[in-house]
Amino acid sequence: MGRIYLDHNATMPLRPQARAAMLEAMDLVGNPSSVHAEGRAAKAMMERARSRIAQAIGAQSADIVFVSGATEAAALALAGRGVHGAGIEHDAVRAWIAEDLPVAANGRVTVDDPARSTLQAANSETGILQDLPAGLAVSDWTQAFGKIPLAFDWSGIDMALISAHKIGGPKGIGALILRRGLDVAARIKGGGQEMGRRSGTENLIGIAGFGGAAEAAIQDLENGLCERLDKLRNILESALDLPTRETIFVGQESPRLPNTSCIVTPGWKGETQVMQMDLAGFAISAGSACSSGKVRSSAVLRAMGLTDAEADCAIRVSLGPDTTEAEVLAFAEAWLGAHARFRRRAG
Amino acid sequence: MGRIYLDHNATMPLRPQARAAMLEAMDLVGNPSSVHAEGRAAKAMMERARSRIAQAIGAQSADIVFVSGATEAAALALAGRGVHGAGIEHDAVRAWIAEDLPVAANGRVTVDDPARSTLQAANSETGILQDLPAGLAVSDWTQAFGKIPLAFDWSGIDMALISAHKIGGPKGIGALILRRGLDVAARIKGGGQEMGRRSGTENLIGIAGFGGAAEAAIQDLENGLCERLDKLRNILESALDLPTRETIFVGQESPRLPNTSCIVTPGWKGETQVMQMDLAGFAISAGSACSSGKVRSSAVLRAMGLTDAEADCAIRVSLGPDTTEAEVLAFAEAWLGAHARFRRRAG
Repeated sequence: MGRIYLDHNATMPLRPQARAAMLEAMDLVGNPSSVHAEGRAAKAMMERARSRIAQAIGAQSADIVFVSGATEAAALALAGRGVHGAGIEHDAVRAWIAEDLPVAANGRVTVDDPARSTLQAANSETGILQDLPAGLAVSDWTQAFGKIPLAFDWSGIDMALISAHKIGGPKGIGALILRRGLDVAARIKGGGQEMGRRSGTENLIGIAGFGGAAEAAIQDLENGLCERLDKLRNILESALDLPTRETIFVGQESPRLPNTSCIVTPGWKGETQVMQMDLAGFAISAGSACSSGKVRSSAVLRAMGLTDAEADCAIRVSLGPDTTEAEVLAFAEAWLGAHARFRRRAG
Repeated sequence: MGRIYLDHNATMPLRPQARAAMLEAMDLVGNPSSVHAEGRAAKAMMERARSRIAQAIGAQSADIVFVSGATEAAALALAGRGVHGAGIEHDAVRAWIAEDLPVAANGRVTVDDPARSTLQAANSETGILQDLPAGLAVSDWTQAFGKIPLAFDWSGIDMALISAHKIGGPKGIGALILRRGLDVAARIKGGGQEMGRRSGTENLIGIAGFGGAAEAAIQDLENGLCERLDKLRNILESALDLPTRETIFVGQESPRLPNTSCIVTPGWKGETQVMQMDLAGFAISAGSACSSGKVRSSAVLRAMGLTDAEADCAIRVSLGPDTTEAEVLAFAEAWLGAHARFRRRAG
C-alpha cells in the first residue's frame, strides 16, 4: 500500500470530473468580459459552471458570486457588519465577528438573533453539525457542502460560503451564495464583474473545475456516500477505542459529518501523532489545515470547554469518497502501534 | 484560416508551459499549509513557482504575495491610502485613487510626489509606456510584464501589480510584488497564509501555471519577441494607414508596448468595428476587456484629450507571441474592406 490520505477536510484530491472540466476550459482563448466569439464562449462556460453549482447547492433562486475561496467569501459577507458568532468558527470567519455566541460542551451553538449572527453548518475539526435558524445572516458551508445534503433556497438563510477544493475542485475558487434580492458591498473593485460585487477577470479554469466537482459531489451523495462514510468512520472509531477508554471522540454524541473523526488522547500531543503517522505513510492533521503550520492548540476544542492540555492532544482523521475500509484499518493498526510505543515511553 | 485572435491584452491563450505546470499541480494531493508529506510537496511546488516569477520579474529581494489577480493586488496595495494617480489607470486602480495627475496629449503622466502616487508601466488600451520615478508607491505592471523587460529590484518602486493571464498563464491568479521590508494590511484574513498578508488556501494549480507562463514569457523576450512584435505592429499600422489620413494611431509618437495598436477612425464606432471584425473571424476589442461589456467611450482616451466622439471610434489590436505576419495582413485586408463599406454607407 502506498501513502494513505486521510485529510480530506484540509483539501480533497482533484476529482476526475473537475480535471476534465478544467482541461476543457484550458482550451478556451477568451476573456469572459470580451464581446467577441472567444469571449462569449468563455462566458458561456462560466455560466454553465455557475448553474451546475446552483443546482448542487439547491440555490436556483439565489445569486452565486465567484470569489477566490471561502476565506474571501467570509470577508465579503462579514467585514464591517458587526455580526455575532462563536469561537468554533473558522479563522476566516472569526476575523470579522463579535465572538460572543455560547458553545455547549457538545459543540452546539445557540443563536438568539439570527439576522445579526453567523453559524457554520459543520465544523472542520470535529465535524459537528449545527441547526441553522431561519433568517441567519451568514453561514459557513465550506465543510458541509458536498458531504451532507444541503438546500440553500429552503434553508431560509441570507448568505452561505463555499469552497471548491473541499469537494474535489481546485484550490483558489469559491463562492458567496446570496439570497436573491440581497446585496453586498464590493471589496475588490474595478471592471465590475460578478454584477459589480467582485471585480477582476474570472478564474475560468477554476470555475469550470468547481462546477465539475459540485456535480460529482452531489452524485456521490445521491449514491449513498454519507452512509458509506458513516460506516467507515464507525469502523475507525471502534478500532481506535482503547480498552483503557482514555481516548475521547469529540462530538460523538452530536450529529456529525459522516467523514470526520476528532480524536483526543490525553498526554499524547496531536502534533507528534501527525508526524509519526506521516512517517508511517498516513496524512492526517492536528486542528485545521490553515493553521496547522502554527504550533498552538485548537481554538475550536477550547471553545467547547476542553483544556489546553486536552486540545493539544487532538488529531483529525477525515475520510473521502475514495477511502476504503482497508485504508481505515491500516491506519488504525499503525495508530495503535504508535500509541503502544507512546505508552511504553510514557511509562 | 480559422479564427484569428488579436486581443492578447484582454487575455492571452494558455501557454503550453503553463498548461504543463498546471497538469503537474493537479496530481498533487495536499494543502500547502499541511505539515505532512502531501502538504510539503504542495508547498514546495508553490515556492518553486514563486521563485520562477521572482526571477522573471527581477525581484530576487522582494516579496511576492499571491492574490487572485491584479485587481485584488490593486485593492491590497491602494485601498485606504489616498494615493494619487491619473485617469489612464485601469479601473481596478482608479477605484482607490485621487485621480488628479495630469495626462499629456501624448499619453504620458507627470508625477510630482512619487511616494504618494501610482503610475502604470504600460497602458492596456494604447500600449503607451511611462517613465517610472524612483520611490513610486505603486505601479500597475499588468500589461507591461512579459511584453518588455522589467526589473523590479532595479526600479526603485515600492509595489508592483502583475497578473498571470496577461502573459499566458491562467486567469484568477496574480501577485503583489512588495519591496523587502515593506508591508501591507491584509484585506482577506483568516488562516494567515502569505505571511499574514493574504489569507485563504492558495490557488496551487493557478500558481504553478503562473510560474510556467512567467518563465516562458521571459524566454520569449530573450529570444527577441519585442523586436518581432514591433515589426509586425508596424506592418499592421502601415497597412491600415489610409491614403486619406483619417485614421489616428494613438500614441504612435510615444514609446509603446510592441504588441499594441490603438486605432481611431472618426465617425466609425469602435463597437461596430469589433462586431464586424468578429463576424469576419477576428477577435479585437474596443477599449479594455474588463469594461468591454459596457457601452461607453474609453476613459483612457478621454483622459488623453480625445473627444467623446473620437474615443467612441477606437479599436485595440493586440498581438501575441504566436501572431504571424499572415494573420496581421489578413486582418488588415478585412478591416480595409469593412472600412470601404462603412465609407460607402456614410456617403
